[in-house]
Amino acid sequence: MKLASYLLQGQRSYGVVMPEGIIDLGRRLGSRYADLKALLAADALDEVKPFLKFGVDHDIHRVTYLPVIESPEKILCVGMNYADKRKEFDQHNPAPTLFVRFADSQTGHNSPVIKPQHSCEFDYEGELAVIIGKGGVNIAAADALSHVAGYSCYMDGSVRDWQHTWFTAGKNWPQTGAFGPWMTTADEISDPHNLAIRTWLNGRMVQEDNTSSMIHKVADLIEYISTFTSLNAGDVIITGSPGGVGKKRTPPLFMKPGDRIEVEIERIGHLSNVIVEARAPQTIHAAAH
Amino acid sequence: MKLASYLLQGQRSYGVVMPEGIIDLGRRLGSRYADLKALLAADALDEVKPFLKFGVDHDIHRVTYLPVIESPEKILCVGMNYADKRKEFDQHNPAPTLFVRFADSQTGHNSPVIKPQHSCEFDYEGELAVIIGKGGVNIAAADALSHVAGYSCYMDGSVRDWQHTWFTAGKNWPQTGAFGPWMTTADEISDPHNLAIRTWLNGRMVQEDNTSSMIHKVADLIEYISTFTSLNAGDVIITGSPGGVGKKRTPPLFMKPGDRIEVEIERIGHLSNVIVEARAPQTIHAAAH
Repeated sequence: MKLASYLLQGQRSYGVVMPEGIIDLGRRLGSRYADLKALLAADALDEVKPFLKFGVDHDIHRVTYLPVIESPEKILCVGMNYADKRKEFDQHNPAPTLFVRFADSQTGHNSPVIKPQHSCEFDYEGELAVIIGKGGVNIAAADALSHVAGYSCYMDGSVRDWQHTWFTAGKNWPQTGAFGPWMTTADEISDPHNLAIRTWLNGRMVQEDNTSSMIHKVADLIEYISTFTSLNAGDVIITGSPGGVGKKRTPPLFMKPGDRIEVEIERIGHLSNVIVEARAPQTIHAAAH
Repeated sequence: MKLASYLLQGQRSYGVVMPEGIIDLGRRLGSRYADLKALLAADALDEVKPFLKFGVDHDIHRVTYLPVIESPEKILCVGMNYADKRKEFDQHNPAPTLFVRFADSQTGHNSPVIKPQHSCEFDYEGELAVIIGKGGVNIAAADALSHVAGYSCYMDGSVRDWQHTWFTAGKNWPQTGAFGPWMTTADEISDPHNLAIRTWLNGRMVQEDNTSSMIHKVADLIEYISTFTSLNAGDVIITGSPGGVGKKRTPPLFMKPGDRIEVEIERIGHLSNVIVEARAPQTIHAAAH
């Protein structure tokens, strides 16, 4: 199953993406599970299945995709996790490189990715996103994949000139983390380490690898992370990017307004976004809480 | 005013800490502002003032302090921000070092701080915490202090053997960030850079400096952070620790079960916690959402 979060006529909902359109789950289950994160927290994916035979509710082109999980409690990002990328950045530390994205740095499939005004080095990183279903602490690697609800594509837009070795300021600009189009449920991905992953900038392939090249595998990452912090339903681990990023090319290749950036992961999805310039001065309207 | 979040007979509340006890604001304002963060988000500190003349509701010894803000949306932590600390860690990067704590790594005044089982290097860091009142983006340094609701003490417990240059895994273990006892409102602190800050381990003073020694001042930190991410009511910036941490002593001095760690900041408060060993296996009970 492919599960997406979206806006339709200004209303938030979520549903199953089928070839012919979307089955609206928000309409049917929204009173019990406000969003996809709540559905996962209730371990209620089985409740979706009866609706699969009813046919679709909406044309896919009528919806605006939101980040697959709009407000994860935790987004943990893994750096330097592909052999080629580690070579590019001369990284030898054996521990997983981990940094944090705030939820409000995300955007959905087909929505604009914003190039910060303050950056001359806005770089692409195509990544496999892991979405947690059943939460836990001290999860053993052997059990870890049973805690995964599904997988998605992520374009971890990286403001290199603000990144430093602690990453935070380079990875949290608004609308720099594209997450989608949807979550492919884990039952369809028997091995998350046998998937081609590719990134295109304006139609030119700039990253190409296979998730088998990850140094720290998904199960090991879940074990490592859940040793020091709890993982909860809807939390997201983005698992690092292959080599080929713009910063390490000669000459460097950065994203500019008007560019199209695409990430495709075999059997999971194809994420596409256009880069836009930040308004001057860049303003963010924080959601009411 | 000193505002605290606390548990009383198993119920969450918040209130004004007076010399003779606590004025319970949750009882009076809780239907409109569920917690201290909501009170700040509504810019409603003025609504507290009429209650100051009514006398206290509870003996201070009957309450269990919670982290001043229990669930900040963002906790941004500044590393290497005192001249002595930068010398100890040979840090020369001119940009603010920033990492993230998740809200579930916090604990309150007088509650246990948990030493992770997996660490032999559990270190103390006494810090000034800044609590945001009025949110914003692109906040100019000249205006920044008007966005501060108040100040508190923070003991940023640091798991050095998991820290690395990206910090995340060293700073997010459960109950390693002690935050309290309360927030002293900003109207009582005309200059946040003229405050003595001291840390004691088992009564021995191990850190002593003044907030005037910060490299990046509070106003500059707010300007820098709000350039790349929105700051919202209840968000917390912990502003780095003076020199004297255990990792850089000869011999090193780390915290062990039974130790008492205390942080005092002039005119703000005195935070005290006892270190306890993690249970085996360490379990965290995630709050329901």
